[in-house]
Amino acid sequence: MSATDPIANLAALIRCPSVTPAEGGALAALEEQLRPLGFTVDRIVSSTPDTPDIENLYARLGTEGPHLMFAGHTDVVPPGDAALWRHPPFSATIEDGMLHGRGAVDMKGGIACFVAAIARLLAEGRKLPGSVSLLITGDEEGPAINGTPKLLNWAVARGERWDACLVGEPTNPDRLGDMIKIGRRGSLSGIVTVTGVQGHAAYPHLADNPVRGILALARALMDPPLDTGTENFQPTNLEVTSIDVGNPATNVIPASATARFNVRFNDTWTADSLKDELIRRLDAAARDEALRPGRAPVSYSLTFAERPSHVFLTRNDRLISTLSSAVEGVTGHVPALSTTGGTSDARFIKDHCPVVEFGLVGQTMHMVDERVAVADLEVLTQIYMRFVESWFADAAA
Amino acid sequence: MSATDPIANLAALIRCPSVTPAEGGALAALEEQLRPLGFTVDRIVSSTPDTPDIENLYARLGTEGPHLMFAGHTDVVPPGDAALWRHPPFSATIEDGMLHGRGAVDMKGGIACFVAAIARLLAEGRKLPGSVSLLITGDEEGPAINGTPKLLNWAVARGERWDACLVGEPTNPDRLGDMIKIGRRGSLSGIVTVTGVQGHAAYPHLADNPVRGILALARALMDPPLDTGTENFQPTNLEVTSIDVGNPATNVIPASATARFNVRFNDTWTADSLKDELIRRLDAAARDEALRPGRAPVSYSLTFAERPSHVFLTRNDRLISTLSSAVEGVTGHVPALSTTGGTSDARFIKDHCPVVEFGLVGQTMHMVDERVAVADLEVLTQIYMRFVESWFADAAA
Repeated sequence: MSATDPIANLAALIRCPSVTPAEGGALAALEEQLRPLGFTVDRIVSSTPDTPDIENLYARLGTEGPHLMFAGHTDVVPPGDAALWRHPPFSATIEDGMLHGRGAVDMKGGIACFVAAIARLLAEGRKLPGSVSLLITGDEEGPAINGTPKLLNWAVARGERWDACLVGEPTNPDRLGDMIKIGRRGSLSGIVTVTGVQGHAAYPHLADNPVRGILALARALMDPPLDTGTENFQPTNLEVTSIDVGNPATNVIPASATARFNVRFNDTWTADSLKDELIRRLDAAARDEALRPGRAPVSYSLTFAERPSHVFLTRNDRLISTLSSAVEGVTGHVPALSTTGGTSDARFIKDHCPVVEFGLVGQTMHMVDERVAVADLEVLTQIYMRFVESWFADAAA
Repeated sequence: MSATDPIANLAALIRCPSVTPAEGGALAALEEQLRPLGFTVDRIVSSTPDTPDIENLYARLGTEGPHLMFAGHTDVVPPGDAALWRHPPFSATIEDGMLHGRGAVDMKGGIACFVAAIARLLAEGRKLPGSVSLLITGDEEGPAINGTPKLLNWAVARGERWDACLVGEPTNPDRLGDMIKIGRRGSLSGIVTVTGVQGHAAYPHLADNPVRGILALARALMDPPLDTGTENFQPTNLEVTSIDVGNPATNVIPASATARFNVRFNDTWTADSLKDELIRRLDAAARDEALRPGRAPVSYSLTFAERPSHVFLTRNDRLISTLSSAVEGVTGHVPALSTTGGTSDARFIKDHCPVVEFGLVGQTMHMVDERVAVADLEVLTQIYMRFVESWFADAAA
């Protein structure tokens, strides 16, 4: 029976250099694995002005409910300098029990295991009393504009509805079985620009150095902490990720200074209430500067990045316990239920059905020599098999 | 008699596009003005590895003491976009009583007036009982490595000694007669680099954001003020002129951050004692960061620019009063005795003889449409004539 081996499935995907926004053959390879299993496969190209066209894939097996969705992405981040890799980043070389390649854990590996899990269940003659679908984007590592959101809209428009979703992103910090994600913090980015008055460093009274203002505003963004965390979430954290002036002349006071920041926020906030708080802090700091000797209020502008990631928490206990039991049954570890880490496309899916996330060990994601233990691929395949079976049994009960 | 007209002298110099490090014909034009007056002229090319060769000029009239030096430069800063100029920047166009061109006030104008002053004194048959020399560099607006310092060394090596020096830089803020410079603040530049640990913005506990450290260190450099000024000097002032991280990725915590600063310091400090104070401040701030919750000491490196400009004050009251009387006698204004503003090549000359500075009105220096009032050229020529005569009379007395 085809596609039952997650290692072969993964090697085929890794050999496709699908660096965002390139499809790179990865979706075609996936389609080849899915069609023989009986999936109906649609390849959807999404376009938006000023962003690259993106190829996505939606595949469904079965026509009735209940309907379980598996979500993921075949696009990968760039390998960087390929000469730094122990093995070529798209070669899928196995050495010492590790399969090397860009996307091995993030997240072609998760897709390969899910396909293998379904293939094995079918090969064993198990009935899947309902439908299973794969919603696979080529734009998770990019701006995501032409990826999961458009694919969801396309599917909903043709009548697709789902009862639950499993996202196959790498969720385990150290060991397979460590962690399930049951929600995600939100993410909000922005740029603050302080405008001063350019001048000669020897005549500061004729100038207004914007560096003073950007120091005050950056400090106000970071201190004090925005909250101390909530029941299910870490404390909200703001990082000023860059400050830039770009003035090479030591005898010139510059005209402007820019700070970029990113906030990972918990359910204390909505994106809007967080924006209000940041504006309040900046305004207060800008006014306070005028209280310092010889200083005027800081003149600044603020731009928030479009489309913040909204915070969410999955409250479907049955879905969570079904996944947790499958992980524990195969690995012997009770996974932590976490909302830590970055954002994922689960933030789009949560508007359509309850969503949980479980995949491989993420340690090497985005790094040189990204790799996965071959043994983990087998274990994850078994976890997915058990989860799918349990979920349909639960749904039928 | 040749060279008695400062307007003609200046126009000839402006028409030479002597943007540092190019000689541009300016020293040749000056030599043509000086030789007919009886000056012995030397053109000296200075070379240093990794810097452009620079042409300089030394001219002397007379062989005996006392010896008065006039110092200046024929190099000019770039005109920028010539299309922004009302008249081509090297055309020396006169319109509405103003002579336009790069270098008009900084400081081909000062040279033109000094040459005219000497030419007129000679034309009038006045005796100059001693020697007058011009020490003119082509590297004042550049790194100054191959300019005045090397030219002074060359002259000293051949036995030249001076009793006083007048630098012809533009010293007047608003009106001819406003201000004589009797010293200069020092200037010290440096670069602070904070090294952190790069990471994902969603996992700040695995990273160490150097932006926090650079904010703390930049603040410590600027606050509190280094001093409140001295009898002859403004307060020392430090400007952080750039902060740079260069991180375009909003989801990445950067690995390092850099701050550049420049200090204009008074006679409270030497360059060395100032360096000690800045290091003390940075070390204290780096340690203090460790007192904040969850923070470690800041890891930073500090580099001071080579060759700081040393602070100096001219203490030769007779030289100052001779110049002040000449200014007052011609303009009716008692000039302020100041140490404000940027540095000048006087910082090199002060090691060889007492030095004072007086020239044109500096308002348009380094700007588009740099220009000088034709009337000011006449007045400055008369001031220089009176100063030279009085100085020799004083020296003989």
